[in-house]
Parts: sequence; structure tokens; C-alpha cells
Amino acid sequence: MFEKVAIIGPGLIGGSMGMALRQRGLATTVTGIGRRRESLDKALEVGAIDKATLDLSQGVKDADLVVLATPIGAFGELAPQVADSIRSEALLTDVASSKAKVVETISSALRARPDVAYIPTHPMAGSERSGPLAASASLFEGSICIITPLSNTFPESKGQITRMWSALGASAISMSPQAHDRAVARISHMPHLAASALMAALDQKDTDLCGRGLLDTTRVASGSPDIWLDICKTNREHIRDALADYIALLQEMADALQDGNLAPLRNVLEAAKQKRDRLLETRERPAPPPQQ
Amino acid sequence: MFEKVAIIGPGLIGGSMGMALRQRGLATTVTGIGRRRESLDKALEVGAIDKATLDLSQGVKDADLVVLATPIGAFGELAPQVADSIRSEALLTDVASSKAKVVETISSALRARPDVAYIPTHPMAGSERSGPLAASASLFEGSICIITPLSNTFPESKGQITRMWSALGASAISMSPQAHDRAVARISHMPHLAASALMAALDQKDTDLCGRGLLDTTRVASGSPDIWLDICKTNREHIRDALADYIALLQEMADALQDGNLAPLRNVLEAAKQKRDRLLETRERPAPPPQQ
Repeated sequence: MFEKVAIIGPGLIGGSMGMALRQRGLATTVTGIGRRRESLDKALEVGAIDKATLDLSQGVKDADLVVLATPIGAFGELAPQVADSIRSEALLTDVASSKAKVVETISSALRARPDVAYIPTHPMAGSERSGPLAASASLFEGSICIITPLSNTFPESKGQITRMWSALGASAISMSPQAHDRAVARISHMPHLAASALMAALDQKDTDLCGRGLLDTTRVASGSPDIWLDICKTNREHIRDALADYIALLQEMADALQDGNLAPLRNVLEAAKQKRDRLLETRERPAPPPQQ
Repeated sequence: MFEKVAIIGPGLIGGSMGMALRQRGLATTVTGIGRRRESLDKALEVGAIDKATLDLSQGVKDADLVVLATPIGAFGELAPQVADSIRSEALLTDVASSKAKVVETISSALRARPDVAYIPTHPMAGSERSGPLAASASLFEGSICIITPLSNTFPESKGQITRMWSALGASAISMSPQAHDRAVARISHMPHLAASALMAALDQKDTDLCGRGLLDTTRVASGSPDIWLDICKTNREHIRDALADYIALLQEMADALQDGNLAPLRNVLEAAKQKRDRLLETRERPAPPPQQ
């Protein structure tokens, strides 16, 4: 599918992509580009990449696919370097968890490079762990990958990225960066903050008693604060709106507990169970065919 | 350890107790008592009980250990029936998720039975599933079981219940019903409502895109609304207070997102990660020796 793939930041997501591309024979060579030798050595060790370099321009220049997989905070510095080094006709993609601001940063860096096809994506897969040691070739199997093509994205470039994600086991779904940011604020970013707030609010003497439920409810709160702060910075308004709606619903429940009329609480418990059970059912069915 | 054990409501928790007591040779006979033949047949089928009866008084009368394991809402009706049938010197325990009001209900039913030892417990283990088909002999392994002895609990009865929970794989911890209700409101009841509210607030078209994170954060929201409404009714004040604290923290985060000064958000993300990582570490260490 690709000759040379360059992955800038072969950590959890980038490393899993490299590993999956290599194991499935979808790339001839995968080069990992990073800032720290130690981290690149780990990526080599786990088989996420074939080669490693600290020199971005060297690592990028021959690649037919370049993946920007660092935390979002580094994009402002890296995107212009990629724009200077990437070869003509290459595909550039990123895997960031927020899209509108990221697309702006990268598109702006590529202004003088209309010969490069940029297709933003967001694989809805991950883990509370980070770094190449957490990478797995099966990370994307059965997952959704959101593609947010731009008005000037060539259909053939979008098709190629879609086929790649399908080959990695994900169902690709296409929407605008704005629609992505609104939806993902609700199903991922705000729930992350909600889980973190739950854990942060608790005393150790209480949590020492807890069962499996709390550990699962707060699993994502073990994620990297830096990565999540970057996401919050670049999707601030949508997360704020989602959080306001969540607080309003919790306040209704608190009022019901105060009044002793628990009917609103029952409604929430029942709606939640129905929605989650239905969602699980759809996940147990085979994935839909990929959109082109 | 016991001759005859009677389990009223051999569902997820009661059924798992029966299964574990039987598999570990801790009871000669386990009788399941229920309201529906169909459910008792399932409990027999999965090996949670040896015998089944719809007749509470018949099932309870010879037992040296009686376990009240139905939803809390049935306690008001069942406790007086147990008090009428339970034999002298028998141990009575319940496994309800809230304690102060439950202890009041059961103690009041037992007023004329000072010859019966009642020791309330709350195994901090469970699942979003319910019923005997969800039961497992290993459910309590590595878990905490909170015991809330009463002022008139005999030390030997408390010792016996503690040894039983240890034999089922749980670490028993002792505290007052009031201290239990305050702590468990924070680590279980309020987080359950928080997870349910997250799920209830979402649209299907958004959740269809979600990753594993949301499924885990909201896992407990697939639990039975009836069981959880009973818990909310009987621990209303503590849950209300815990929810108020949670809402206040979320509001600080919403304000930070509004202002664009994300320092308070970083504090929450970092405190949450530290607390959860520490909690996981303690869980990976061997369980502490049981308290007597």
C-alpha cells in the first residue's frame, strides 16, 4: 500500500500504526522520527518502526506517507518543518484528538505546498497508557476512525487513507472538523474531564475501599495530563458546552436527592442503561463497510 | 464452616456467595430462596445453590447462616419474615450497598430475637450484570468486604463472618454503618450516578463514534435501575453531598474552560492521574491480612 512511511512521534498511536502497517505488509519501510533517542529505541525494540532518526527532514523527505502523531502542542513547531521537507505528491495525515484548530495549523504551514495532500484523521482508539511500549498492532481493530477531509482534499487521497484505516481494522467515517470537534467533545473530551474530576475529588482513605466499578469509571483518568491539556486547549468551546450540559443534568439529580422525589433520577438511570446496552449491541455486531 | 446456608435472593451477589461457599467446601448445603421459580432454576443450573424453595420460612428455619441478598426495596417485607422463621443462635447477614437504613430495618424486625446474631456486610464487588447467570465463584477474590458491626454484635459472630469473607477471597474491613454510607456514597453511589448521567446525556449519533474509553467510563450505567434507585433512596443525604462536591469541582473546570486559564484543569488532571495510579499500585500488591 505504501513504500516509505514516516511516523513523527511513534508513541501509543503512532507506534501502533507502525506496528500494524509492518505486520500487515502495508508498508515497505516505516521510519520513526522523535526527539529522544531512548523513546525511538523502544519503538524499534517493540517492532513499531524499521528505522529511527532524530532528524525530521531526513526522516520525512522520501516518504510517500507522513503521519504526525505527537501531542498536539508540538504541531505548531513541527508542521512548518514537515512542509519544508515533505516530497511532492506525498500524503500527510495527523491523528490528533481535536481537529478544527489542528487543521488550521497544518493547512497554514502547507500554504506553499499545494502538491502535498493533507487528510486529517482521528482514530477513536487509545488507552490510558502512552509511549511506544503501550503500542499494539491490534489497537485499531473494531474501532472507528474519523476522517475530516478538507474542501481541497483530492478524492483519491481520501480513498487511500480510508483504505489504510480499513486495512488496520478500523471503520472510517467522514465528517467536517467542526462536526468532529462537537461530537468528540461529548463522547470523549468531556467524559475524560468527568472521570478525572471523580478521581481528583476522592480521598485515599475512601478509594482504598473501592470496587472494580470506580477503577473502570476512572480508567481514562490515568492518561497523560499533558496530552489531555493540549486537547482541552484546542477544543475549549465544545468541551465547555458539553460540560455545562452535564453539570445541568447532575444538578437536576442533586435537586431530586435533596427533595426526595427520585423520579428524575429513575429517568436518568433508565435512559443510561438503555443507551449503553444498545451501544454495546451495535459494537458486538460486525463493523459497517468502510465509507469511501 | 457452615452446615446449612440459606440465601434469600441468589442473584449476582447471593449466587456468587453460594457458588463460592459450595466450591470451597465451606457449606454442607446451600438453599436458595426466591420469588420466581425460573430464577431459582437458573441458580440451581449454574451451581449457585443445592436446593431451591419459594417458601421463605421453610428455607430459613434450619439454617445456621442466613444471607439477605435481595434488592434493598424488599427488606422491609422480608426481614420480619426472617425474624419469624430463623432458628436460635443462627447468624444473619445482609449484603446491601447502603447500611444505616438497612441496619435500622433489619434490627427493628429482630427486636424480639436477641438470640439471633445479625452482622451487616457490604462486599465491594459486583458487576453491571445481575441475576444468577452473572454469578461467579471468584467474584470476591481480591476485593474488599466492609463489615459494619452493631454495638451489640458478639465478637465471635463478627469473627465468623470475617473468616467467611476471607475464605471467599475478600479482605474484611470494619467500620460503622454511618462511616460506610459516607465513604461508599463517594466511591460508588455518586460515581454510579455520574456515569449514568454521562451516558444519559448523549445522543446515539454521537455515541456510535465512541471509543473504548466511554464504554469503560460508563460501564456501571448498564446496572439495574431498580437496584440503584433503592440504594439512592437509602443513602440519599450522603449521595447528595458527594454530588454537590463533584458538581462544584466540575464547575471550576467549566469556568477555567470559559476563561481560557487552564491551570485549574491541569491540577485536576494531574491529581486524578496520581491518585488513580497510586490506587492501582495498592491493588496490585497482595491483600492486607483480615481484620478480626
